[in-house]
Amino acid sequence: MDAARAAQDLLTKPKGSLGVLEDLSIHLAGIYRTPRPMIRKKVVFTMAGDHGVTQEGVSAYPSDVTSQMVLNFANGGAAINVLARHAGAEVRIVDIGVASGMDWPPVIVRRNVARGTKNMATEPAMSRGEAERAVATGIELVYESIDAGANAVAVGDMGIGNTSAASAITAAITGRPVSTVTGRGTGVDDKMLEAKVRVIEKALKLNSPDPSDGLDVLSKVGGLEIAGLTGVILGAASRGVPVFLDGFVTGSAALAAHSISQNSREYMIASHVSVEPGHRFALEHLGLTPILDMRMRLGEGTGATIGFLIAEAACKILNEMATFEGAGVSRSSKEGEE
Amino acid sequence: MDAARAAQDLLTKPKGSLGVLEDLSIHLAGIYRTPRPMIRKKVVFTMAGDHGVTQEGVSAYPSDVTSQMVLNFANGGAAINVLARHAGAEVRIVDIGVASGMDWPPVIVRRNVARGTKNMATEPAMSRGEAERAVATGIELVYESIDAGANAVAVGDMGIGNTSAASAITAAITGRPVSTVTGRGTGVDDKMLEAKVRVIEKALKLNSPDPSDGLDVLSKVGGLEIAGLTGVILGAASRGVPVFLDGFVTGSAALAAHSISQNSREYMIASHVSVEPGHRFALEHLGLTPILDMRMRLGEGTGATIGFLIAEAACKILNEMATFEGAGVSRSSKEGEE
Repeated sequence: MDAARAAQDLLTKPKGSLGVLEDLSIHLAGIYRTPRPMIRKKVVFTMAGDHGVTQEGVSAYPSDVTSQMVLNFANGGAAINVLARHAGAEVRIVDIGVASGMDWPPVIVRRNVARGTKNMATEPAMSRGEAERAVATGIELVYESIDAGANAVAVGDMGIGNTSAASAITAAITGRPVSTVTGRGTGVDDKMLEAKVRVIEKALKLNSPDPSDGLDVLSKVGGLEIAGLTGVILGAASRGVPVFLDGFVTGSAALAAHSISQNSREYMIASHVSVEPGHRFALEHLGLTPILDMRMRLGEGTGATIGFLIAEAACKILNEMATFEGAGVSRSSKEGEE
Repeated sequence: MDAARAAQDLLTKPKGSLGVLEDLSIHLAGIYRTPRPMIRKKVVFTMAGDHGVTQEGVSAYPSDVTSQMVLNFANGGAAINVLARHAGAEVRIVDIGVASGMDWPPVIVRRNVARGTKNMATEPAMSRGEAERAVATGIELVYESIDAGANAVAVGDMGIGNTSAASAITAAITGRPVSTVTGRGTGVDDKMLEAKVRVIEKALKLNSPDPSDGLDVLSKVGGLEIAGLTGVILGAASRGVPVFLDGFVTGSAALAAHSISQNSREYMIASHVSVEPGHRFALEHLGLTPILDMRMRLGEGTGATIGFLIAEAACKILNEMATFEGAGVSRSSKEGEE
């Protein structure tokens, strides 16, 4: 990172004038352990799972939509497909916890751990064993992609009801009140939002997850896709690959990953901050500064694809720009004085 | 724009969940007059000019750097070259007011109107005729590119001393105090910043530019590259082509363009907000909301290249995403009620 910072200061521009692009290039230099970081192959993991807590009426969409959207991903018609194509990234769609038991087209990665979670307002969302299997699945899948050449990974989610799980995880791990970290998800009204807060409070009271034990939090109030994404984050970090977070749900997976292995945060890049109010508290807890604030709240990994494009720009600056000396450009009088 | 908004609401995502991407797609639909806007060919105009006011010691870099950087642009080693390649955009480098009288390589567009401006602290920066010629040059060059197929244009600047001109223009047109709209440019220290403010105040007092007459402002306290970029903005707007602004200096060109033709603002896209304090006041005056805040302050058109990438993503959403009906995805209960 020091070498990358020194290299940035030799390039033909005033020191620091590329702002976030410079910081990001230095961060990536640290992750890749080279002053010339390069993103070669990008993969988005969009994991899908259902949530028993939808029985409590916490979402504006019916549960069937999780399954319908997986088919939409398979057909290339969802926002993540469009944006990943734009960013030149592969998308791996994983059924890790969809309830429908559909016979998916071959493009869907079939790693169903359970047909949705249980209703966390009345019992734990899943067993510890299921949470472990989901995390292990994420690790295994990201290792496969890294072994096949991926050196930048993004996490994305699909699961009707999963902002309720994300709020529960965020409240449990950051210690913030549920009402502070709970938002409208796909678009509930004021009355449903109040009910959603009460359901999450009830789930936390009933299950009392241990914030210092990420697997405990995931199993009691998490989601199968959130646990899978936790595995993707841990797996990428363990292999020295940057992992681009997306919105609130992946932010809750990042909290769980950090609770399991604190060092994993060094490999996380916060692509953007979501409209969901809990997201900024999750990022704050992780000590991450988001690159973008574009009022997005879709999930699927959509915001992370824009993060990819900006990170590539950052790397190219370090790799391709001329130096003052090389280009015969005079230095600042201020820098001369330093 | 209404048709694009209606189309957005049929796509397989919660209404409004792509935030700025949706707003931008609707804005571009208006500019292109189609609910399916598409960016085909992108050109960045990076115009270079020198500033007589550098005699007052307002910049941390020597004036020679303008000319040296033009050669760096020609060799493809500057930040704008790297970022334009990343965004798939052509860069047109224009000597519209460089002082050196260099025999440029053929890739540089030679349209020198004058060898730099006069020192605005002691006399008008240029004659009205020169300002008119520079604006006309910008219009002519952008028409050439549009005739050759460009349908998205960005503006970028290079000119040691040009943040002083930009501050003078911004103070004159927005009515804000000079001290509020003046920053460190390429990196002056506290003492030089104080002196810079006094020089700009002196220039405004001496020349008393008429804020309702953009050409008067440009000629008295502007720059040749700023006037040229004003022409690029006006030319793009007159041909119905979106123009992506960059940082503070292009923001001052946008203020001048708006003063000459108020309607031009409808075609402006604020790619980002710069660290230079005057930039946000310029954007506020124009009623523009920046897409990005990445602490950039380089100019050259660098921020606008990221704007291009995000605008393309926005257009692709409208063009490529599946609808709820087409993909067989259930709608939100909330939307059903509406």
